[in-house]
Amino acid sequence: MTTETASLADMANAIRALSMDAVQAANSGHPGMPMGMADVATVLFSDYMKFDPAAPKWDDRDRFVLSAGHGSMLIYALLNLTGYAHPTMDEIRNFRQLGSPCAGHPENFMLDGVECTTGPLGQGLAMAVGMALAERHLNAKHGDDLVDHRTWVIAGDGCLMEGINHEAVGLAGHLGLGRMIVLWDDNNITIDGSVELSSSEDVEARYRASKWHTVRCDGHDPADIRRAIDEALADPRPSLVACKTIIGKGAPNKQGTSATHGAALGEDEVAATRKELGWTAEPFVIPDHIAAAWKKTGERGAAAREAWHQRYEADKDRAEAYEASTTLPGADAGAVLQDYIRGLVAEPKKVATRKASEMALGPLTEAFPNMIGGSADLTGSNNTKTKSTGPITIDNYDGSYVYYGIREFGMAAAMNGMALHGGIAPYGGTFLIFSDYCRNAVRLSALQQVGVTYVFTHDSIGLGEDGPTHQPVEQVMSLRLIPNLNVMRPCDTIETAECWAIAMANAHTPSVLALSRQNLPQLRGEGDADWAPLKNMSAMGAYRLKSAEAARKVVLIATGSEVALACDVAKALEVAGIGADVVSMPCMELFEAQDASYRQEVIPDTVLRVSIEAGTTLGWERFTHGGSVVNGLNIGLDRFGASAPAEQLFERFGFSVDAIVPQIKAKLGE
Amino acid sequence: MTTETASLADMANAIRALSMDAVQAANSGHPGMPMGMADVATVLFSDYMKFDPAAPKWDDRDRFVLSAGHGSMLIYALLNLTGYAHPTMDEIRNFRQLGSPCAGHPENFMLDGVECTTGPLGQGLAMAVGMALAERHLNAKHGDDLVDHRTWVIAGDGCLMEGINHEAVGLAGHLGLGRMIVLWDDNNITIDGSVELSSSEDVEARYRASKWHTVRCDGHDPADIRRAIDEALADPRPSLVACKTIIGKGAPNKQGTSATHGAALGEDEVAATRKELGWTAEPFVIPDHIAAAWKKTGERGAAAREAWHQRYEADKDRAEAYEASTTLPGADAGAVLQDYIRGLVAEPKKVATRKASEMALGPLTEAFPNMIGGSADLTGSNNTKTKSTGPITIDNYDGSYVYYGIREFGMAAAMNGMALHGGIAPYGGTFLIFSDYCRNAVRLSALQQVGVTYVFTHDSIGLGEDGPTHQPVEQVMSLRLIPNLNVMRPCDTIETAECWAIAMANAHTPSVLALSRQNLPQLRGEGDADWAPLKNMSAMGAYRLKSAEAARKVVLIATGSEVALACDVAKALEVAGIGADVVSMPCMELFEAQDASYRQEVIPDTVLRVSIEAGTTLGWERFTHGGSVVNGLNIGLDRFGASAPAEQLFERFGFSVDAIVPQIKAKLGE
Repeated sequence: MTTETASLADMANAIRALSMDAVQAANSGHPGMPMGMADVATVLFSDYMKFDPAAPKWDDRDRFVLSAGHGSMLIYALLNLTGYAHPTMDEIRNFRQLGSPCAGHPENFMLDGVECTTGPLGQGLAMAVGMALAERHLNAKHGDDLVDHRTWVIAGDGCLMEGINHEAVGLAGHLGLGRMIVLWDDNNITIDGSVELSSSEDVEARYRASKWHTVRCDGHDPADIRRAIDEALADPRPSLVACKTIIGKGAPNKQGTSATHGAALGEDEVAATRKELGWTAEPFVIPDHIAAAWKKTGERGAAAREAWHQRYEADKDRAEAYEASTTLPGADAGAVLQDYIRGLVAEPKKVATRKASEMALGPLTEAFPNMIGGSADLTGSNNTKTKSTGPITIDNYDGSYVYYGIREFGMAAAMNGMALHGGIAPYGGTFLIFSDYCRNAVRLSALQQVGVTYVFTHDSIGLGEDGPTHQPVEQVMSLRLIPNLNVMRPCDTIETAECWAIAMANAHTPSVLALSRQNLPQLRGEGDADWAPLKNMSAMGAYRLKSAEAARKVVLIATGSEVALACDVAKALEVAGIGADVVSMPCMELFEAQDASYRQEVIPDTVLRVSIEAGTTLGWERFTHGGSVVNGLNIGLDRFGASAPAEQLFERFGFSVDAIVPQIKAKLGE
Repeated sequence: MTTETASLADMANAIRALSMDAVQAANSGHPGMPMGMADVATVLFSDYMKFDPAAPKWDDRDRFVLSAGHGSMLIYALLNLTGYAHPTMDEIRNFRQLGSPCAGHPENFMLDGVECTTGPLGQGLAMAVGMALAERHLNAKHGDDLVDHRTWVIAGDGCLMEGINHEAVGLAGHLGLGRMIVLWDDNNITIDGSVELSSSEDVEARYRASKWHTVRCDGHDPADIRRAIDEALADPRPSLVACKTIIGKGAPNKQGTSATHGAALGEDEVAATRKELGWTAEPFVIPDHIAAAWKKTGERGAAAREAWHQRYEADKDRAEAYEASTTLPGADAGAVLQDYIRGLVAEPKKVATRKASEMALGPLTEAFPNMIGGSADLTGSNNTKTKSTGPITIDNYDGSYVYYGIREFGMAAAMNGMALHGGIAPYGGTFLIFSDYCRNAVRLSALQQVGVTYVFTHDSIGLGEDGPTHQPVEQVMSLRLIPNLNVMRPCDTIETAECWAIAMANAHTPSVLALSRQNLPQLRGEGDADWAPLKNMSAMGAYRLKSAEAARKVVLIATGSEVALACDVAKALEVAGIGADVVSMPCMELFEAQDASYRQEVIPDTVLRVSIEAGTTLGWERFTHGGSVVNGLNIGLDRFGASAPAEQLFERFGFSVDAIVPQIKAKLGE
């Protein structure tokens, strides 16, 4: 072996030692993957990755995604050894303990250098597709001088068996994202045992079928790893590098078996591994010459970063254009929409809120070219495309609309990747029912604190004839349960515009817009007591849309398409001398964030409260029960829908003035 | 053309006419697919499908799955034309109207002959894998004489782009389910336009990479369709038959475009199509000679069915064995578990409920070999395998355990398929967090009313070090929102056994078992007031586990791992002279199904009620708010978790006696 190769092996053994020792200290974790992929990661970081630990957020850095997130010690070791400020060795020593940024799975909100939160299998790879697409898009806008980086992924068999990888691979191949390279930890082991227990797939053939380049290498031979990566770099297609590895490599009695996958090796095997690797240092101690080699690796990127900064500084106009184009809409979105909203006030429109969304997207996408839209093959139904958004294709990355195909989960993950990459405000559409298909990616938007906007249309039985398979009943409420997610169900054109402004203003909280298929009257702008034309009322989460005329005996709380119904119910109640407020609640989460006095003012617990929403009722009791008028009324749908025209379904399931008014009167004893 | 071919074309045109006329009458629906696949379907039903409309539930019938469920008129036309009792022509005339069994998408609970509910793309194909596996399994047990049928699927580009199809294809190829044949409607059109907009995949190459046989044909040439199907039948692998078709075939101005996909053709184009097809009959009228040809097709299977019945009758022992083996556990499961529960009463066990589940599965899988278990590569963690369950492999279908691989969605859909096939009670495991990955299949279990049991383990922050990506916070409550699904979170060994009995007893309501990773004390069997050793208390949904000793001032309602905590809280309250009931609520849905007097007895609204569950609180207000003591207390976790040992997390997030007791005292003003 040459000195250089020996040095790489030593460096890789540092990863192995840290991984097995940290897992052993925690008595919890996954040593097998970092030990198996240590050689590949060492070659990648030593010879290929463009990064600078001193500037972890440098725009033009390569992105590294550990899709097999359970092998988190691999990335913690890499970040520490190459000189990132965190994790410190003490933080690694506290792997998986409360307060350590070295969580069980890598978390982007805990550590610089962790580009995304991984662990839910397949999603890292799918987010990488979004990152690679963002890079090509910004490159098309700003050129190689400013945007010229790669996206590297380490993925395991789990990532490759998950359905989402089919969607991600299909999208990346179709869009020709050649700067994306997946290093597959081909160790032939899953938790249950050998891969042969559950799969007989020719993975490479499958990738090639989706227009990927594939190449194999010995994942423990640095020269062979280099050969394969060089071949991948030379090919214009995205690449899968199958790295044949031994899981837990170095653990003499357990390597190559699933015993190394998800548990500490045990004191004896750790000792045996030390011997096998010739690793004499104490746990969490890196011998000086190896630490020095890693430090040098970490310093490799500084020159590239400085050169990038020089190029950036050299052309002020270009730099300004770059900054402008990568600055997200933020609060400016609200300002951009003011004229549009003024127009609606002057000339109300009765349209579906999915159409209202398209109308709001018009001025937004015109003002903010970094809004990249798309749909999972429902463009005309989700109304996500505007005249400002030309398609992104393999021949032209300078568009701003992605035809994601029938790939909801892949779309959601790609949007997460784009948002994480930075410089882009992604939004994408599908039917609300298919939020089920991408639900865990929505959750990862929330957990990762990224500003992704989900345009979920056809949001209730109002979808009509397509029937119960396509009618969301439980989806709105179930999305509300996800922490750090604003679920918005606007009632008309104006609320829809307000909700778009809210979505754009929240860079660290993703948004769901639940939008109607059917036309809804415009309810705002008619001079109600609390009406202020250009104040974003939806930002309060809920507000009084109509005040009681007779003495107030009931507050009707409704969302989306049921707000108009609530107004009709109120009208009927007033005719009977029963004063009724109507509260529109486009966003439960934002309402809960208001102070107690506002909440009490809008939904006082001293009168009967009635919720009206065409979905499951569980959860509405928070706003209707208790207080001095004890049990409110929850009008909803606690069963699956049916196939019929929408109006008939609303009638059939009790969403009508005739069905609701008597229930309220009975509650009031009138 | 020969007379026979002409006849097939006429027969296919009957499908086309019914499809376009029904969609036109509803002014809603998808004519393109049925018109495009009419020729393929005609050949399939005329020459290959084994079925008897007079006995639609005949066990040994071929299964036909319309995975591209939006083309529902295809199957409605086929069922009507071949002589099923339903749909009648009037029901077809009322396509997509309230009360018609001809729903927008095919629903198994509305029509015999509709083997599963489809529409959510990819799932039909994935359910078919379960059906095909069920067939091979029962064939291995009972031989060709009794079990010898095929599973046919019509799938579109949407089905093939969805991630789940990768999982389904991988599983079917691995298990060598050669009696499954997918007829791919290769029309090159999706909703957004040409497939080229979003995909560049070589679909056949991908299928071959997963050990499938593939063959192409002209989907409008009966002879070529036959050639391809014959080739598929001759190959031992599962087959993909790529049928090159023209979407909306017959509509002269719209065929071949996405305009025919999801909307009525319009009166003019319908008229033009009549002319193009030479179809002179009025809407919903089938010319006699064509009706007669279809009728003959429908009568084709009677002889095979009679022969099957003769074979069945010929061997009484074999028939009895068949009946016994295909009769689901049902209420007998409870009886089988009685000795086991007696043992627990005599000798309590402190184990994780996932382990308790394995312990209950021991006697169950021994008594009921038709319980087919599995896990999405977490066998040792989900504790789903027992000593009675040998693996199902390509070489031996006579096992009862499936290594599903890392394919949660594919597993769930396959279980739906097995349950729909009949004769099998499937159960399968993954981490509760990954219920997100298969959520829409869980929904389809509920919608389809099939007895599938989901073993979802690691059900809270009790999962510990793996951290927030793997800690379910919102999943338990969000699953409770799905109609017709029993979500059960047992607190100990005995409740876990009871929940298994409930799951097996409900053939038409699927079950979720949310089970702990961590050990939990056995709380039952200690002689509490309401304790009756062999009464299934969990079947009430909730029950009083412990009665207040001092005057009752509070009712603590808890589930799963928090019931033991509630007992400790009660103990501390009693020390302070505050009487506290403890109510265990393993299944909210079953509790809500009890009568009002039982509910009031167990959770009286005249005292303070406190819910304790390590998950999101929204929804618990239903049981804690209102009544004469107005606002209860909801102890839960409305944020993402963190990575640390479980005990530290419970402490950190307020799940401790010290944290909870003061809140209760404050509420009581003590």
